[in-house]
Amino acid sequence: MKNHVWQVLSDRVLLAREPWLVVREETVRLPDGRVVEGFLKIDAPAYVAVFGVREDGRVVAVQEYKHGPGRVALQPPAGFLEPNENPLVAAQRELLEETGYAAREWRLMGRFHTDGNRGMSLGHYFFATGLHQVAEPNANDLGQVTPVLLTPDELHERVMQGAVLTAGAAACFLLGLSVFARQ
Amino acid sequence: MKNHVWQVLSDRVLLAREPWLVVREETVRLPDGRVVEGFLKIDAPAYVAVFGVREDGRVVAVQEYKHGPGRVALQPPAGFLEPNENPLVAAQRELLEETGYAAREWRLMGRFHTDGNRGMSLGHYFFATGLHQVAEPNANDLGQVTPVLLTPDELHERVMQGAVLTAGAAACFLLGLSVFARQ
Repeated sequence: MKNHVWQVLSDRVLLAREPWLVVREETVRLPDGRVVEGFLKIDAPAYVAVFGVREDGRVVAVQEYKHGPGRVALQPPAGFLEPNENPLVAAQRELLEETGYAAREWRLMGRFHTDGNRGMSLGHYFFATGLHQVAEPNANDLGQVTPVLLTPDELHERVMQGAVLTAGAAACFLLGLSVFARQ
Repeated sequence: MKNHVWQVLSDRVLLAREPWLVVREETVRLPDGRVVEGFLKIDAPAYVAVFGVREDGRVVAVQEYKHGPGRVALQPPAGFLEPNENPLVAAQRELLEETGYAAREWRLMGRFHTDGNRGMSLGHYFFATGLHQVAEPNANDLGQVTPVLLTPDELHERVMQGAVLTAGAAACFLLGLSVFARQ
């Protein structure tokens, strides 16, 4: 379906706040020949999110204030990649920083863009098992990050009841629950 | 947990491309008293997404080019709210435009922000049953939107195998599959 792809004819930066955000304006040619001006794209750093399960079957999530929604949300351990950082290394680092846990096995569940039209970040979602505490949490983030242990059923219930405020967190938790159920 | 909330001390518009995008820079006071300057927020219009099931149990999805990822993706029928439009009305309109289907019963599955830090759009995700074709699809979008019928198992398999490219689409499909399984 290569003929569905839009051709970018030109590209202009409207706002640059690197490393956090670059907003661009593209002129694109659609497959039917129409030319659209001023299509807005956003570049933001990639991030990782971790669905991590302890030996006893409990999922290690975090409770954290998110300034996008402006409320405290249930989240997977997650964070932006550092420059040139490998996604798996970033996932291991974020899990350790936010929860104090290390994992025995890791696999990639999938990669998802934050916004279908604008792009934004690419999220790498990992499934980790054999989690065991090796340190105290030391997130060093802007806000307090509190680890929470939940059984898969409890986590599912909380996702369905609105404890999760972002599409990315909902996707990561529900993908993880699917992978877990298939093990 | 009200004491977790960041206090916005000042707010300045960096880029305004209404109705699509407004980028703002906030100075915020964290709960521990620290003041952070230049925290970036993005306002973008709300959208709806629909997990819709036909009388025969098949889910009505769409195949569509998304310029964020730059590829064709499997998506739920979805779109931005028009100014002052009620989310349910928008969901009914988008389902009809993109697939030609109407539904007998509607319920809200949840509301999710696109980006936990920047905010972006708020997505209203609906679960609709009793879908029946009442018109031809007439999406009138920038790209071609092709309806696809899938059993819940087929849809789940495709989500797990990478056919979905955005966190919002993954979240909507997996939430819908959970609601469907509990019916």
